[in-house]
Amino acid sequence: MTSLKPFLSDNAAAVHPKLWDAMRAADQPDNPYDGDALSAELDARFTALFGRDCAALWVATGTAANCLALATLCAPHGGVVCHREAHIEVDEGGAPGFFLHGAKLMLAQGEGAKLTPHDIAALIDPIRADVHQVQPHAIAITQASEYGRTYTPGELATLGHFARERRLGLHMDGARFANAAAFLGGSAAEAARAASGPVDSLAFGFIKNGGMGAEAVVLFDPGRAAEVRYRRKRAGHLQCKGRYLAAQILAMLDDDLWLANAAHANAAAQEVAAGCGDRLLHPVEANELFVRLTEAERAALRTEGFAFYDWGPESARFVTAWNTQHEDATALGKAIAAL
Amino acid sequence: MTSLKPFLSDNAAAVHPKLWDAMRAADQPDNPYDGDALSAELDARFTALFGRDCAALWVATGTAANCLALATLCAPHGGVVCHREAHIEVDEGGAPGFFLHGAKLMLAQGEGAKLTPHDIAALIDPIRADVHQVQPHAIAITQASEYGRTYTPGELATLGHFARERRLGLHMDGARFANAAAFLGGSAAEAARAASGPVDSLAFGFIKNGGMGAEAVVLFDPGRAAEVRYRRKRAGHLQCKGRYLAAQILAMLDDDLWLANAAHANAAAQEVAAGCGDRLLHPVEANELFVRLTEAERAALRTEGFAFYDWGPESARFVTAWNTQHEDATALGKAIAAL
Amino acid sequence: MTSLKPFLSDNAAAVHPKLWDAMRAADQPDNPYDGDALSAELDARFTALFGRDCAALWVATGTAANCLALATLCAPHGGVVCHREAHIEVDEGGAPGFFLHGAKLMLAQGEGAKLTPHDIAALIDPIRADVHQVQPHAIAITQASEYGRTYTPGELATLGHFARERRLGLHMDGARFANAAAFLGGSAAEAARAASGPVDSLAFGFIKNGGMGAEAVVLFDPGRAAEVRYRRKRAGHLQCKGRYLAAQILAMLDDDLWLANAAHANAAAQEVAAGCGDRLLHPVEANELFVRLTEAERAALRTEGFAFYDWGPESARFVTAWNTQHEDATALGKAIAAL
Amino acid sequence: MTSLKPFLSDNAAAVHPKLWDAMRAADQPDNPYDGDALSAELDARFTALFGRDCAALWVATGTAANCLALATLCAPHGGVVCHREAHIEVDEGGAPGFFLHGAKLMLAQGEGAKLTPHDIAALIDPIRADVHQVQPHAIAITQASEYGRTYTPGELATLGHFARERRLGLHMDGARFANAAAFLGGSAAEAARAASGPVDSLAFGFIKNGGMGAEAVVLFDPGRAAEVRYRRKRAGHLQCKGRYLAAQILAMLDDDLWLANAAHANAAAQEVAAGCGDRLLHPVEANELFVRLTEAERAALRTEGFAFYDWGPESARFVTAWNTQHEDATALGKAIAAL
Repeated sequence: MTSLKPFLSDNAAAVHPKLWDAMRAADQPDNPYDGDALSAELDARFTALFGRDCAALWVATGTAANCLALATLCAPHGGVVCHREAHIEVDEGGAPGFFLHGAKLMLAQGEGAKLTPHDIAALIDPIRADVHQVQPHAIAITQASEYGRTYTPGELATLGHFARERRLGLHMDGARFANAAAFLGGSAAEAARAASGPVDSLAFGFIKNGGMGAEAVVLFDPGRAAEVRYRRKRAGHLQCKGRYLAAQILAMLDDDLWLANAAHANAAAQEVAAGCGDRLLHPVEANELFVRLTEAERAALRTEGFAFYDWGPESARFVTAWNTQHEDATALGKAIAAL
Repeated sequence: MTSLKPFLSDNAAAVHPKLWDAMRAADQPDNPYDGDALSAELDARFTALFGRDCAALWVATGTAANCLALATLCAPHGGVVCHREAHIEVDEGGAPGFFLHGAKLMLAQGEGAKLTPHDIAALIDPIRADVHQVQPHAIAITQASEYGRTYTPGELATLGHFARERRLGLHMDGARFANAAAFLGGSAAEAARAASGPVDSLAFGFIKNGGMGAEAVVLFDPGRAAEVRYRRKRAGHLQCKGRYLAAQILAMLDDDLWLANAAHANAAAQEVAAGCGDRLLHPVEANELFVRLTEAERAALRTEGFAFYDWGPESARFVTAWNTQHEDATALGKAIAAL
Repeated sequence: MTSLKPFLSDNAAAVHPKLWDAMRAADQPDNPYDGDALSAELDARFTALFGRDCAALWVATGTAANCLALATLCAPHGGVVCHREAHIEVDEGGAPGFFLHGAKLMLAQGEGAKLTPHDIAALIDPIRADVHQVQPHAIAITQASEYGRTYTPGELATLGHFARERRLGLHMDGARFANAAAFLGGSAAEAARAASGPVDSLAFGFIKNGGMGAEAVVLFDPGRAAEVRYRRKRAGHLQCKGRYLAAQILAMLDDDLWLANAAHANAAAQEVAAGCGDRLLHPVEANELFVRLTEAERAALRTEGFAFYDWGPESARFVTAWNTQHEDATALGKAIAAL
Repeated sequence: MTSLKPFLSDNAAAVHPKLWDAMRAADQPDNPYDGDALSAELDARFTALFGRDCAALWVATGTAANCLALATLCAPHGGVVCHREAHIEVDEGGAPGFFLHGAKLMLAQGEGAKLTPHDIAALIDPIRADVHQVQPHAIAITQASEYGRTYTPGELATLGHFARERRLGLHMDGARFANAAAFLGGSAAEAARAASGPVDSLAFGFIKNGGMGAEAVVLFDPGRAAEVRYRRKRAGHLQCKGRYLAAQILAMLDDDLWLANAAHANAAAQEVAAGCGDRLLHPVEANELFVRLTEAERAALRTEGFAFYDWGPESARFVTAWNTQHEDATALGKAIAAL
């Protein structure tokens, strides 16, 4: 597909040049798997980024990152509370069922695909504490959410308090964590509320942000890392030449490239949003826009060369990326405004 | 690790320049997952290579390739016959148990980590055909084997006949399939005996042969591809930017780079073998050498700058790669001869 | 618990005397597992009952019966459509996730915990036919439903047609199949619409109908029986002394004891219903009543010695059984009428 | 099968009259599942029997008992060391693979199907402590072993010490635990070395000892009971009318019926053994005899009305039971002696 003005998704964008450089620099002999010098740096680099001890592992996909982390938070006979429209429920081909050996996704409702303690309690409070009903073991939230909404540090603190009170693990799907962090002020630590520790694990996404095929599983309790390493191998996710994945991630962390890329995408989204007015279905906080558009309006935009997905019969989704052209974004905003 | 003369393994070798070029050429917008133009070529290219209809999918690791293919040949309540020293039994962290939902690996013995119908029958004939015992559903062989031995087309035909007779699927772990094919005369089709169809699926390895992170699951019954595609997603192995994996594989197939790389590695292995005499534990047919060496002898070699793994207390394993230097290989052969 | 007038559930009622007799008669040497003479009769007896070829196996619980049957209709990467309030979703402790290796329950809505093709299509039509979304493989319905409603033969025919059209398996949870059949006129064949074959499998319940610990998995495609037998063993459900389970089931089939017991329970339910008027939340077709009752009214009934479960804050569930006393049922009906 | 002198197995023997009485006594209303008064007694009764705190649950089969207990000792990515001829490996239809979600059985060798620390170390010491190899999480032993051999309290203490040192769980398959305890002097506590705590869990078998369909999972760490209860439900093993299972077990514990039954079977085995001389392949310590007998000799015994299984081409297995007739046992001993 060679659309001139691509807003389909950030998930197939080109790879950032600095990552190419880093991978080429890694193209020399080193130990296989994660025994190489680059992989060995990950723990320290994420510890520095989050300002607290953590362990970090590379994997090739967000699905694997989420599921490997969740598998240590939820036993096969337990359940993971997530939003009804969470990616792990809707778009991961049943991967949680596979990695968690049949554990149940328990579907809560919440505005903007976000969850509050209230939303979660409404789902789990009616569950009888007997063996006939699956008990919740963990919560999974998405930062930014499937509708591009972010959790503020305060909201995370509240959720974390609730999770601890209910003895539930808390995992964060961060496929677009960088975009959330950029929106929230630029601190990874704040975007995961790392200091006060509500989140147990984070799938820190890089692929949608200019990476090729590397995400990080970040474990804020490093003691869980050994189990995740065994599970990663068992799931066929331990690549021989892991140094090329580590190289991508380290290049992203260098000079906060992850943040610059996300900020660029977010800014482009705002340029589009400027033209959307009350067509927006959700506030634009990250790099996704959900816009009310009739079929005719969508057709008109496509005629002008904009590529994007329909979002139900009445709207469309636009996604900006690290490499979205400023002109394309403003053009799209204007085109929508002119409809 | 920066050994001057590396014979540790082919699994961490650098990436072939042509693959870098291909990946860079793919660094432009296209559809995500396997919807891109490159991934779309795979079926046809492998069909041409094997001279019969087949479907092919990329995955990032050999473990995933083996297990995804096996999962369609063996139900959770069945078993897969493999050699006692097969990689799937010994070195994949229990991945078959995960992907096959607890199916059993049934361990046969055979010379050189190869299996014959006789070996397999010795294992499965005593199994009572009742529900108390797990019944075999499939066979997995490795081409080249874990001891660097190859199956001749004739041996494959015999195995295939046996498998069909017993109604067992037959999967080939081809982590070093290229090396086997190079030894057997250079025909991929012959190395899988594709024409007469004994093998149901092949994990065609490229990573140990100069790839970065892409292997092919080749299904000689294309009708099984849909299931494998669902299982691949479910296992978190469907990468967003699959075009970079497809690019690697296609570059390998172009002008038979896969074969040239393997032939180079095999030739290097023969150069080493030339100095080993009766120290060799197994005939050298691919790119691995298992050499009887005392502890002192191994220490001496290491002093000379050769890097390799011990193989038990009395021997060592040397592996050559697509980029093994001719001088290093002959030097190693001479050093061993001089011991 | 020694309530004088028990309407809590039929699932803990005493065992019918004829079953005791049958078990005692089986108390002599025979082959273990299902190799005994009684187990050997099952296929023929159910074939006679349903008027078409079927295979039948005993298991100790309805949960196991449902899950073993479903496991042959739905691959681990697929989904089973069921009602949002289906027992397999709500009350089996996640057993489908276990037996089906993480397959997904897909929750449809429908009146009275019943499903129509319309209800199912509303759920599955929006599912994209791509690997990112779990595809439905089967449908599970409950006869009688979790609200005591029955599927007429005509409704079953329609559902069966829909299932075949969509290439979905169709399983019937018949924990109270006998009660449904009694309501529908007394024919097991009609209650499963066996003649025209819409249903692939039936968990035929006996325990709630006077049994001790034996249900039947009935497979209308006997070719699936071998797989279910292997899975039964693998799930630890193949009892050594299976003859005692077979004896219970055969005694139930003798002279249609299953039907007489269910008819008794249904009649008792009607006696209660006679006093409920418009308090009934669902038409009473089997042996369960869902009755609108305030907290005070429930307390009053309990004071009179009636035992039953609350059903949410505003109602109660009453269940009659094979041994419900006529006087107790009429007394309950009158007591409710008098509130 | 109506052999006059049955030595096929104890697993299909009739049910002891006292158990029938106990089940009939339980045939009155009580709470469903394990909420009844009888099930509630189990913890206390086993605590008294073993002289230390334990939790106990009924299940219908030994396979389920073993697997449910093991599932709490071994993660899906781990392994359970057992004897190469252990029942869980050879005769449970792959149930451990199912209940443990693909965990691996790791097969050790040892005399008489028993394991020593030395046997286990020989298997697990060569395992590299890396993610490519499955790590052992637990050990499973069988008391009495598959060849009718017992572990002395001293041997158990040694094994327990080893297990703790290696941080491995220790489970005891006690399908014939009663026979072992009877041989070892009659103390259940000693036969599990309960006082000093080496064993984490015991599948205490009753079915082969005169039961109908109830075994006990005994957890010497009662804190694990909640998980096992959830897993039991999830595996479809929580029967509605659990009181009939509890009744069997309690009747067995009353006045040490379990011990009397086992002592009877053991004595009968000794009567047979008296005639076997050096034909015995294993010392007779419980109720199984493995006897060297040619095909002709076996035919001769069968002509005399003895029923038993061949054990390979050169021998036979004889099993006595709680109801083996004294005359039958002595007749068999004499018949063998006379061959």
